Amino acid sequence: METIVMKFGGTSVATPEKIIGVAERAIREKEKGKRVVIVVSAMGKTTDTLLGLAGEISAEPPKREMDMLLATGEQITISLLAMAFKKLGHEALSFTGWQAGIETESVPRNARIEQIHTERLERVLDNGYLCVVAGFQGVDKIGNITTLGRGGSDTTAVALAAALGAEKCEIYTDVDGVYTSDPRFVTGARKLEQISYDEMLELANLGAGVLHPRAVEFAKNNRVPLSVRASYSDEPGTIIQEVITVEKNLIVRGVAFEPGVARVTVIYKKPFNGSLANIFTKLAENQIDVDIIVQSISDEFPPSVSFSISQESLEETRRVLTEAQSDIGFLSMNVEIGLSKVSIVGSGMVSNPGVAARMFDILRSQDIPVKMVSTSEIKISVVVPETDMKKSANALHEAYGLSELQVHQDIS
Amino acid sequence: METIVMKFGGTSVATPEKIIGVAERAIREKEKGKRVVIVVSAMGKTTDTLLGLAGEISAEPPKREMDMLLATGEQITISLLAMAFKKLGHEALSFTGWQAGIETESVPRNARIEQIHTERLERVLDNGYLCVVAGFQGVDKIGNITTLGRGGSDTTAVALAAALGAEKCEIYTDVDGVYTSDPRFVTGARKLEQISYDEMLELANLGAGVLHPRAVEFAKNNRVPLSVRASYSDEPGTIIQEVITVEKNLIVRGVAFEPGVARVTVIYKKPFNGSLANIFTKLAENQIDVDIIVQSISDEFPPSVSFSISQESLEETRRVLTEAQSDIGFLSMNVEIGLSKVSIVGSGMVSNPGVAARMFDILRSQDIPVKMVSTSEIKISVVVPETDMKKSANALHEAYGLSELQVHQDIS
Repeated sequence: METIVMKFGGTSVATPEKIIGVAERAIREKEKGKRVVIVVSAMGKTTDTLLGLAGEISAEPPKREMDMLLATGEQITISLLAMAFKKLGHEALSFTGWQAGIETESVPRNARIEQIHTERLERVLDNGYLCVVAGFQGVDKIGNITTLGRGGSDTTAVALAAALGAEKCEIYTDVDGVYTSDPRFVTGARKLEQISYDEMLELANLGAGVLHPRAVEFAKNNRVPLSVRASYSDEPGTIIQEVITVEKNLIVRGVAFEPGVARVTVIYKKPFNGSLANIFTKLAENQIDVDIIVQSISDEFPPSVSFSISQESLEETRRVLTEAQSDIGFLSMNVEIGLSKVSIVGSGMVSNPGVAARMFDILRSQDIPVKMVSTSEIKISVVVPETDMKKSANALHEAYGLSELQVHQDIS
Repeated sequence: METIVMKFGGTSVATPEKIIGVAERAIREKEKGKRVVIVVSAMGKTTDTLLGLAGEISAEPPKREMDMLLATGEQITISLLAMAFKKLGHEALSFTGWQAGIETESVPRNARIEQIHTERLERVLDNGYLCVVAGFQGVDKIGNITTLGRGGSDTTAVALAAALGAEKCEIYTDVDGVYTSDPRFVTGARKLEQISYDEMLELANLGAGVLHPRAVEFAKNNRVPLSVRASYSDEPGTIIQEVITVEKNLIVRGVAFEPGVARVTVIYKKPFNGSLANIFTKLAENQIDVDIIVQSISDEFPPSVSFSISQESLEETRRVLTEAQSDIGFLSMNVEIGLSKVSIVGSGMVSNPGVAARMFDILRSQDIPVKMVSTSEIKISVVVPETDMKKSANALHEAYGLSELQVHQDIS
């Protein structure tokens, strides 16, 4: 019997009425003769309410207790959803993370799943029950409740799909799939029918927020076909899997962009490699995420390194580096704000060496200055002024043919 | 090292501010060098909110899922209380029912505790942590979350005290102890310094709502000294234990009363014993609680049975009996409403045969008609008109000397 895992996020279960809608949707799959597992997040604003309570007690609550607190959010949803199934005449049982056998590391607030003991779920599914599982949470070896951090519910769903040998894992969300670019900003942005894990990973890392990169990686490693689709419609959404059967000819499959980027340039006394490591160790110790790093060493100028960060972490970065200036051993630091990052993603790039050149050419033709560049096998990112972000994205989307209608083959 | 279990109910933990107050109170015990376990209920109105959510999904939600839902209430409180300890500079860990090893029957919404696996709590207590445990909940043998029903958090506290060999179990509540009668209605009602388990049991069963009879019974069976005291003051409260060292000379130790009683009288065709069982079986099947039962069989009148119920269940009782009239085989049924029950409780009664006679005499002197009587070894209850309830209670309280000041010995 085929197994399907369906995951619904917080907005999809925000009210009792929506929860009943989720139940109806899952029942349609059950009635096709499948074993159905439903993974849910906390209802709408529940997490915010819980965080507010904790905030009234302590500005720095212990992480273990935050997990204990936050885990109640999904527990409320699973019980209500199981009630909804019963109300609609179907047998269902709800399971917290520990009851579903989701064993994690002992790392509060950001635990990784180590293994899933599926015995109970398998038994209950085989007895014809719908299984409702709390996303985002698990239990460590000594019985502490843990949470999985950002993207946790998606990860729970993918991990369960892998452990149960599910045919696929469907992520229901408030958008109807993965787009070639953000349709709010880019004319002609289209929904993709399929995309590869790696492409999705790059897009997710670039802030195309439909799916957390961690869940995509888990799906890739376990070859779980993912589908991202809307909880409000029956449209098929986007399928994420290894082999893409249509749209193969596209070199670039998506354009992603994000505003609020700052560039920091640090100028050293001398080409001292140790200090490069020092800078990024200091920043990592202070939980500052660095994105693009460009180092330049020449005979003419003093050696320097530039890196991009989110504008929000600029003050903290400045403080950390200034305090550690003598340790790190640099001469001066300068900063540019008001920047953005624009990226093109596509696995076809690997075999197309001219893609980067074409990208720079397109940007130059629009008089857009490129401040930094970063490339991977399937992605090229550039840092451009924030005022040029939308123009850049539209120009690239158009130039790489993403706006054109495509003929889709049947994927069955 | 001595162990103490402190239990705080929903009103005592209704806000983050109150939770910090609970933490401060427990820290004072910890600083005396004790091992401290704190059992808490759900915050104030949390349970009502959760019930409201369930009600929006289904009028008859499955009990297992109600347990799953309601158990989140205490889980929120324990995490916040553990945060409060940390904030105040003390190490603490929170435990849900299953984490605290509280194993129950597989009876959702009304499970009894079967055993407590204390290994983890013992270890954590010995390492100097305060332990915060969720009341009202446990886990059955196959890992379903269960709740303990009414009085559940008190029962958790007493059961933990027994399992951990605690010196005592303190129940913090919104009254400052057990009173000889309800001070809102009875002039001169006083707080008792001590009371026996059996007396407390009778008072609790009679609606002196400070402590659930189930918790008292558990304490009695395991010889756990209980203390009922106010969460808002440092007054010592009332101690409940087997041997009473002061106030021994009091025959009657408390006067309890409740309004809203109805009396139902069923008249049979003939003295047919089977029909008596039939009546009460039918009522039990329909979850109608019967209190006092009086049967009268004489040669002159047709045989009859009278019983008292709460006025709220009168309509249901009427319906159940009318529907089953031919099965049960009775001639007619009549009903009296507007009654109340007044009881006197005291273990001294056993050896004082005149107590009942004196009670009737006191009531007669006040022209109060006695409609029904029920006696146990340490309790006498009468049913009187509701309009005479307060007068009866005051007269009995006064006549048995409960209003007088007493000289207390030192209990150490």
